[in-house]
Amino acid sequence: MNEFELIGRYFDRKQKPADVKVGVGDDGAVLVPETDRDQVQVIDTLIAGVHFPVETKPADIGYRVVAVNLSDIAAMGARPRWMTLALTLNDNSEQWLQSFTNGLFEAADEHNVALVGGDTTRAAQVTVTVTITGDVERNAALLRSGANVGDTIYVTGTLGDAAAGLDCLRRHQADAFLVSRFLRPTARIETGRALVGKAHAAIDISDGLAGDLKKLLSASGLGACVEIERLPLSTPLQQRFDAQHQMRFALTGGDDYELCFTAAADTVAAISGITAIGTVTESPQLTFTLGGDVVDIDDSGYRHFA
Amino acid sequence: MNEFELIGRYFDRKQKPADVKVGVGDDGAVLVPETDRDQVQVIDTLIAGVHFPVETKPADIGYRVVAVNLSDIAAMGARPRWMTLALTLNDNSEQWLQSFTNGLFEAADEHNVALVGGDTTRAAQVTVTVTITGDVERNAALLRSGANVGDTIYVTGTLGDAAAGLDCLRRHQADAFLVSRFLRPTARIETGRALVGKAHAAIDISDGLAGDLKKLLSASGLGACVEIERLPLSTPLQQRFDAQHQMRFALTGGDDYELCFTAAADTVAAISGITAIGTVTESPQLTFTLGGDVVDIDDSGYRHFA
Repeated sequence: MNEFELIGRYFDRKQKPADVKVGVGDDGAVLVPETDRDQVQVIDTLIAGVHFPVETKPADIGYRVVAVNLSDIAAMGARPRWMTLALTLNDNSEQWLQSFTNGLFEAADEHNVALVGGDTTRAAQVTVTVTITGDVERNAALLRSGANVGDTIYVTGTLGDAAAGLDCLRRHQADAFLVSRFLRPTARIETGRALVGKAHAAIDISDGLAGDLKKLLSASGLGACVEIERLPLSTPLQQRFDAQHQMRFALTGGDDYELCFTAAADTVAAISGITAIGTVTESPQLTFTLGGDVVDIDDSGYRHFA
Repeated sequence: MNEFELIGRYFDRKQKPADVKVGVGDDGAVLVPETDRDQVQVIDTLIAGVHFPVETKPADIGYRVVAVNLSDIAAMGARPRWMTLALTLNDNSEQWLQSFTNGLFEAADEHNVALVGGDTTRAAQVTVTVTITGDVERNAALLRSGANVGDTIYVTGTLGDAAAGLDCLRRHQADAFLVSRFLRPTARIETGRALVGKAHAAIDISDGLAGDLKKLLSASGLGACVEIERLPLSTPLQQRFDAQHQMRFALTGGDDYELCFTAAADTVAAISGITAIGTVTESPQLTFTLGGDVVDIDDSGYRHFA
């Protein structure tokens, strides 16, 4: 099967939304942006052995690469519409591709995202880059900057599950919930949309709460105090790991793909699935407390080139 | 230098065009598409050792990855505006990054393309994916489909130089012109723009004239007859290689990034830098002739997964 047959068989779905005039199969996609909205573009790469274990099922790789990009779209308060895919394969078995595209389209279909273009190449190292284009009401995108002194800091969902799930995978321990939280993160698109006009600043947690909140605060020129006992933790995380591990996974584990945002508390009271964890301060430090005592956190998160 | 310092130092140029509200440095870019135009999106990946020799200078890698994407934009008749970059490095030396970004921005600045976002990762294999977003007059994008029986077939520039240049590189032979045609292809943006409303079908020649023209004809449901003696060949190609090699490089060499398009001859007479090479036929075969005799061509071009 050559590159062109492969694209036709696995990536060119004949049904296209009305805003996609030309999708997969020409030199480029031809799209119709909606007028009176800003456009949001995101791009993220996953590499076998770096971002996921090499033995990860292709369906999970496909799902995850879409979900992590959707998470960036969610953090901007945008609605996702179109995606493109740059896929570097080392295996062109139909089974691999069928599984990969099943996962890819499962994640895309949950949010009505159309695959509109791509490039398929072959090399030793499986590398998957996805871009997603979305849109948001004019001048309403949620940015990292914009937090106000006195804002309450919130996170969606629970923290630390994905890092715990990856730890389980590495130690070949089965925990369906935690592993699934790593392999198939939930992009908080609906929450992001609900925050438009309400949140003052937002970021998605990909490198760990401590590191990502620090980026938000740095962009906003402010600091914060976070109470560790308020961090939302799942029951499986608490059952399987001791308090020290729970804290490490939740604060610096990364891969959560939950949102962290700041807002005036009364404006977001009606939004479900969010937890207040602290307050934005004028002093530029990010401080974590546990039982009232300040705790020292390695906030580096996951960094390339560290 | 960590990922965030790296992005700030090398990729975040503070000057942004007015249509870029938020560029590099947030979860996503915030952009303002022009109303009343269709949007065009393209994506292309280059991998060290696959698409260019591993010893290629980073500046040339940076230039080339932008140019090959611009070529897709040109083939759609579009005007480029924004690009995103997914860069997988195996070397985070400042020298490498400075050279790479010099080449990247040199190619982008030639066409006023703004870098609006990216993702930087680290792995053994250097992989560079670029996306470019452009726009084109409503319903005016040039497609591979749309050729008419009797159309004249044209190409821009000269053919075969890039494949000859790659051949020189591999044999460590110096030929500044041919090597530069491989490393720094010229995206035919101006010609693509001039063809809007005139060309009936267009494609860029990345895999070789024979293979790419066949894709255009297949999308149009037609065939063609091409006269090999009419193919535009550069003087350096003709001086350095025998007739057999000239023909092979020009027809199946790939990497030319010239445009191939079909049009009624009188409509494009005023456009410079194009050469008529054949005619679109109703019979679906693609036939090459030399001195009036039909010649057999291996039309596979460069294929991944062949």
